[in-house]
Amino acid sequence: MVKIIVDCFGGDKSPDANLDGALAALSSIPDLQLILTGDATVIEGRLAGRDYDASRIEVVHAPQVIGCEEKPTDVIRLKRDSSMMKGIMMLRDQDDIAAMVSTGSTGALVTGALVRVGRLRGIIRPAFCPLLPTMDGGIVGICDSGANVEVTPAHLRQFAIMASLYMENVYGVKSPRVALLNVGKEEGKGDTIRQEAYGMLKDTDCINFVGNMESRDLLSGRYDVVACDGFSGNVLVKATEGTALELLKKLKKDIFSRTIYKVGALLMKRMFMEEKEFMNYQNYGGSVLLGTSKVVVKGHGSSNATAVAKCIEQAWKMETSGLSSKIEEAVSKYEHYEE
Amino acid sequence: MVKIIVDCFGGDKSPDANLDGALAALSSIPDLQLILTGDATVIEGRLAGRDYDASRIEVVHAPQVIGCEEKPTDVIRLKRDSSMMKGIMMLRDQDDIAAMVSTGSTGALVTGALVRVGRLRGIIRPAFCPLLPTMDGGIVGICDSGANVEVTPAHLRQFAIMASLYMENVYGVKSPRVALLNVGKEEGKGDTIRQEAYGMLKDTDCINFVGNMESRDLLSGRYDVVACDGFSGNVLVKATEGTALELLKKLKKDIFSRTIYKVGALLMKRMFMEEKEFMNYQNYGGSVLLGTSKVVVKGHGSSNATAVAKCIEQAWKMETSGLSSKIEEAVSKYEHYEE
Repeated sequence: MVKIIVDCFGGDKSPDANLDGALAALSSIPDLQLILTGDATVIEGRLAGRDYDASRIEVVHAPQVIGCEEKPTDVIRLKRDSSMMKGIMMLRDQDDIAAMVSTGSTGALVTGALVRVGRLRGIIRPAFCPLLPTMDGGIVGICDSGANVEVTPAHLRQFAIMASLYMENVYGVKSPRVALLNVGKEEGKGDTIRQEAYGMLKDTDCINFVGNMESRDLLSGRYDVVACDGFSGNVLVKATEGTALELLKKLKKDIFSRTIYKVGALLMKRMFMEEKEFMNYQNYGGSVLLGTSKVVVKGHGSSNATAVAKCIEQAWKMETSGLSSKIEEAVSKYEHYEE
Repeated sequence: MVKIIVDCFGGDKSPDANLDGALAALSSIPDLQLILTGDATVIEGRLAGRDYDASRIEVVHAPQVIGCEEKPTDVIRLKRDSSMMKGIMMLRDQDDIAAMVSTGSTGALVTGALVRVGRLRGIIRPAFCPLLPTMDGGIVGICDSGANVEVTPAHLRQFAIMASLYMENVYGVKSPRVALLNVGKEEGKGDTIRQEAYGMLKDTDCINFVGNMESRDLLSGRYDVVACDGFSGNVLVKATEGTALELLKKLKKDIFSRTIYKVGALLMKRMFMEEKEFMNYQNYGGSVLLGTSKVVVKGHGSSNATAVAKCIEQAWKMETSGLSSKIEEAVSKYEHYEE
């Protein structure tokens, strides 16, 4: 049995989306055991009458609520009875719990995971690795996308190694093509951090480094992993998602501007639905935190039940693929930089 | 008369696009005088038989060719007879020449402009400011987008001031809403550079600072200027353009996958053409270099005649609006940081 904690509060659609997602994951993954944290009365009320194997679910009461504006450091100190912090403390303290999924505050989750759960052996900085769909039907992982706004070349190398192993072990990508996000393709582009990282990545045997990538090529399907600092990675992911959403919104608005367009769009309804699904990040799971000593998956704040189920599945795959020990083994071959 | 140099070689579609663009600008702007640099035999051959006022065009022979892989520092030293460097030297040496437009190598143009033409009084670092269309039909300027991959908070403040004056004086945007590109909207987000820049921007009276902007909101129409370092600005602009292009490509491919979609698309043909034009950066002119002592506009490498004409028009507007002296006056009020 793989034991995973699901933080049932904190997302825009929680607890319903989180509970529905939990039950969906439970029925699709036979060896899954779930611990649901949050207001037990609410959770049990929502689960009453639903069809599921009660022996595979444990509800842990954690009634405290985390406010939007609360500082992560305050959350981990003062909100020990919140659904998130209760989950994090259990993840730390109980050896038989493998992972945690949350759709709550990113800052609080990262800080909680780093301070309470800790890092894998040899990892300097854990990093987020969300996925985006590529135009050839594949996916690309972007690491880091916000956990570390300031980085060194050695951090970038670890992000590349972790994300490459993640894509290979969890998504079955053979010899993932790893790129360094930069302002131009040629070697020597970018700031001193990028220039130094380029050389380091070239010399890292355990990854398939294919050079610099410009942000315009993210969705081209030519890359499986992009290594970047958390600042520009965050800009990259949000600009890509934002542009896609804004364009789809504009298309929709323009379609409704003329009757003939509406007729045309009716004929293309299925296609437009598919485009919308294609760009819907809910279908690609959460942003996993790579490098923490136990698996932590951050679902988007607006996650629906499908997205939550995907996050649980990701966490389960990360655990059962033995990703953590593979990461520890890989990074041990390279110089370890203490902070 | 406003004298502007047009570098006629270096772009993917030069010299034809550059010459056609030059003639188009000449006929739409009455007080424009153009100096065309490049292989004079080729230029004069292409102009022969065309209908234009020959007294308003001067051709300057500069036959050297700049290779794709040449280092900018080598170009400015060794390629003085290239169309770009000839133009830059004339821009520097002749007081009556106001501006230069080029579609050639970005690196060589920036280096040439900085080293040979120099900066406006008080400007620490000139910066690129390309424009993107917003969903409400407006435009947004992104400054810097690649000239400076490493910046300080004081640089960011100057980028904000320059771009704000640019949007106001060249595009008539009243009290431009200036944002700082960051990983979250709240004050205190980002690295130490962003945190410090936020405070500085808040205290800069001559701009309308509206806070942090996440990259997903770039096209929302809520911002007129985005201040950023050249690295993340480059990531932002290229990710936005790239996503739009990839999505339009995907739409087209999907339309051709089924007959009924083709029929639907036929009814929506005009709309799709408009969407394509909307996202076509050729329509939004070049990336102007703000802060150099004379106006320099960089057109996209793939610029067509329309794009080149737009770049010339931009350069003319920058010159006639007195932007440079307004920038010098504005930055003089704030502490000057020597490099």
